[in-house]
Parts: sequence; structure tokens; C-alpha cells
Amino acid sequence: METVGTNRAFGGVQGVYRHASTATGTDMTFSVYVPPHAEGAQLPVVWYLSGLTCTHANVTEKGEYRRLCAELGLIFVAPDTSPRGEGVADDPDGAYDFGLGAGFYVDATQAPFASHYRMWTYVTQELPALIAANFPADMDRQSIMGHSMGGHGALTIGLTLADRFRAVSAFAPIVAPSQVPWGQKALGGYLGDDRAAWRKHDAVALIEDGAHVPALLVDQGASDTFLEPQLKPELLRAACDAAGIPLELRLHDGYDHSYYFISTFMNDHLRWHAAWLKG
Amino acid sequence: METVGTNRAFGGVQGVYRHASTATGTDMTFSVYVPPHAEGAQLPVVWYLSGLTCTHANVTEKGEYRRLCAELGLIFVAPDTSPRGEGVADDPDGAYDFGLGAGFYVDATQAPFASHYRMWTYVTQELPALIAANFPADMDRQSIMGHSMGGHGALTIGLTLADRFRAVSAFAPIVAPSQVPWGQKALGGYLGDDRAAWRKHDAVALIEDGAHVPALLVDQGASDTFLEPQLKPELLRAACDAAGIPLELRLHDGYDHSYYFISTFMNDHLRWHAAWLKG
Repeated sequence: METVGTNRAFGGVQGVYRHASTATGTDMTFSVYVPPHAEGAQLPVVWYLSGLTCTHANVTEKGEYRRLCAELGLIFVAPDTSPRGEGVADDPDGAYDFGLGAGFYVDATQAPFASHYRMWTYVTQELPALIAANFPADMDRQSIMGHSMGGHGALTIGLTLADRFRAVSAFAPIVAPSQVPWGQKALGGYLGDDRAAWRKHDAVALIEDGAHVPALLVDQGASDTFLEPQLKPELLRAACDAAGIPLELRLHDGYDHSYYFISTFMNDHLRWHAAWLKG
Repeated sequence: METVGTNRAFGGVQGVYRHASTATGTDMTFSVYVPPHAEGAQLPVVWYLSGLTCTHANVTEKGEYRRLCAELGLIFVAPDTSPRGEGVADDPDGAYDFGLGAGFYVDATQAPFASHYRMWTYVTQELPALIAANFPADMDRQSIMGHSMGGHGALTIGLTLADRFRAVSAFAPIVAPSQVPWGQKALGGYLGDDRAAWRKHDAVALIEDGAHVPALLVDQGASDTFLEPQLKPELLRAACDAAGIPLELRLHDGYDHSYYFISTFMNDHLRWHAAWLKG
């Protein structure tokens, strides 16, 4: 693991790191904020999965999470959203919603994506091991959140690995990729046409199939242009109600899909995660 | 004035605007955050002047000022750092410390810069009038802060227009441009070789020449690579001590020159400004 750069912030250290990933077969870059802490302390870890077109940098620069992570004693980890570099296939038309910046947190099975697009394994296995080995992380206290495509990632990973993640939340998530254009394109492209394989990567389907978590928190901007065509939180509402999962779903007038929305509600999510992580 | 874009944030509106400036003879872009407020209310205005290479966007995206501006009821205005566009002269070598992105908040007198580089007039006259006309601003309650070159701007403008600005603060400011390479290049290039003309644009010289404010707040990172060669806060310390200006100068171990430093201490500055603005 190579340190790309570190900056002191809010008494802790915001770092950016790079390593050669065996999961993706590429170099991968990620950011970690370590708050001020007593020597030898091990701190809970909040994972943040980013949305389409993003790298680690978007939330690192615009997420406004450091002040409260410092106050609450939370490590904050932000991975990239896809493999990148020489030999990594992209959308044939260079579209923003597939390929580079759009890994959708799955292990692709379809050529030419299967060789590098293994973001599920990267985010759930390889990067956690790297975090455990290199940071003062208490891996028995982890939680996960994300935005848009990363909200999809947080929900599907959190539902699948419910024993690992004590809290799961999302900003404007894609809750049912099987039922919306972004998700159909991505799951079809990465996993093929057999929709049975998609259900493990669709939060609503996972819940219908029996996945369970103690609670979910979802914030959604009412002026988000992706709300109706791509996000459809009402499908998560219905699935959670049917499954008896308490979902706090908050619709915010006037808010859009941007980091201005995310940063506004970041503190609410961090406090919610901290309560579950410490409870 | 044209609205480039607005985003709801922390209950208020973060906007970016553009207008044809008569001061600079170019289009100028700036950002304004208006916090939630009662209809008809007029709110105090905090000016933020940015540093070398920046536009309005750096602090708008990375400054982490909106949460507290919303809580304290402060309008936050961030101008650009130079004129830009067709026909605007730049540093002959394209250097980052002169020309585009480096207006130094002066009205240039030297060709070819005098025709557009009129940032003093722009920031102190034209843009305030535009803010007064288009936002719920109480122009009797203004304060000013800035970073690096913008800290120089905040100090020199705040000291010169002490009746207008109730509070003046800075992050890692250039306090004595006449005595450091960045400032000597800029003041020489924009104002010519007569150093008497520089004193009005040098905070330390202004204080030596009798300018006075009730108090100053300056934060500085101890690991800032520009500290020794360009910033020299000890010169401001000496000038303030000699003039009887209370200067709270805080040196922070491990902090650099970046927005990670600025965002860490932004809340302290906003609270300090709010106290003076409401006092």
C-alpha cells in the first residue's frame, strides 16, 4: 500500500492510498479518514460507497464528514467506484452509467468485464483486509453507507453481510436496479441476461428473498431528477414494510442528487451509524 | 446577473452567478450562500476571498461553511480571484502566482494588466452593489475573511474599509506582500516599481501607516510549506503589537495550506465573525 497523500484535518488525518489489487487486477485508490484517538485505540469503521462517475475524491472533498467523524471517533473509508487503467474495458459508447466509474459493486461474469470488474470482492474482502492491516480499525464494528449507485452498493452489501455491518444507510440509492434503466443496463452488462443472478444485487429483491437488517435509514431529495426514473424509494418502502424492516425514509423538499444534498444530511447518518456501532 | 446554478443545502440556497463586470470588463462568476431565513429578513454578509489558482468553486465545494452559516444566519459570498476570458493578459510564462487566478485584489496600473485587473474595485464596489440589489443582505453588517492571497485581500480591504467590515480574519494570509516573492512579483507587475504604491496593498505596511481595526483572527498551519518563504505571520504579529491591535494568531501543528486546514477552522472564524456582526 502506497500513501498518495495525507492532510491533517479536524485533528485527524485524511489520507489517500493506492495499492495493487488482486481482486481487480489493477491499481486501486481509496481514501481513509482517521480521527484523533488515543494510542492503541481501535475505532469503528464507516464505509462510504460512491455513485456513478465518482472516485474516492468526491466525498473526500465535498462530503463534510470529518468534523463529526472526529467528534464521534469514526474511521471513514471511501473506495473508488470501478477498476481503472490500461486494459480495463469501458462502456462501448463511453457512457457514464456503465464501465469506468460505474462498477455497481458486483463481480462481473460477462466478457470483457469479468477480468477486472470485481468490485464486490474488492469492497467486501480485499479492501477490508487492507484496512484491518494498516489502520487502527475495529473490524468488529463496521457500518456502511453510500450514494446513488453507492447506495445500491451499501444496501446490497449491508443486507448480504448483515452480521458484519451494524448499520446500513443510503443517500438517494438505486433500490431496485432490476427495475430501472441504470440497473438493467449494468446488471445485464456485468452479469448477463439471466435475471436470477441479478437478485443478489438488488436490495428490494434481496429483502423479498429474506435478507434482513435491524433498520435502514434513507434520505432522498424530492427535486432529484433521478428520483422517478432510477431511484424509486417507494419500492424499498413496500419491500421493507412487507418484510418488517423498519425503514426511516425521508423525502426532502428542494434537494437534488448532489453533494450539497449529501453533505446536508451526512451528520444525521453519521450519528445514526455511531448509535448502532456503539450500541 | 445570470444564475449559473443553485442547489439546496442546509435549508438554504447555494448559488453560482455570473454577470458582465464593468470594473474588469469581463464576465465574472461568484457564489453566494443564502441561509434559511424569515421572509423579508436582511442578513449579515461574510465575504470570503480565495487564494492563488482558485475560483469561487474551491471554497464553495470544500470550505464546509454552510452548516454554520445556516445556523448563524450568515450570507457567504465568494468572488473569483481574477478577471478571465478573451483578451485578459496572463503571466507571460503561465505561472500560477500572477495573472489568471492571481489578481491580488488590486487595481492594476501597469500595461497590459490595467485594462482588466481591477479586483479592488470589483470586490469593494461593484460586487457589493450587486449583492445588495439581488440578495437579502444587510450591507450595514459585513465582515471579510480570506485564504493566502485572499487573506492578503481580506486584511488589506478590511484595514482600509474598517468602517464597513465589522470583523476581519484570515487563513494563512500573505501579511506583507512587499517583503515576500509572491507579493513582490504581483505588486511589481500590477502596480509598477514605485514601492510607495504598494503600501496600500500590504497589511503590515497599512498598519504601520496607521490603519486600525478592533481585532484580527489569523489561523496558520505549522506544516504549511509557504509559511516561512511567503506568509511570515510574525511580521503581522510585530505590526499589530506595535499598533495596539489585538491579534489572535494561532499556529496549528501538522496543518498545511489546503482546504483540509481551512475547513477545520472555518467554524471558529464564522463564530468569531458572527459575534462581531451581532455585537
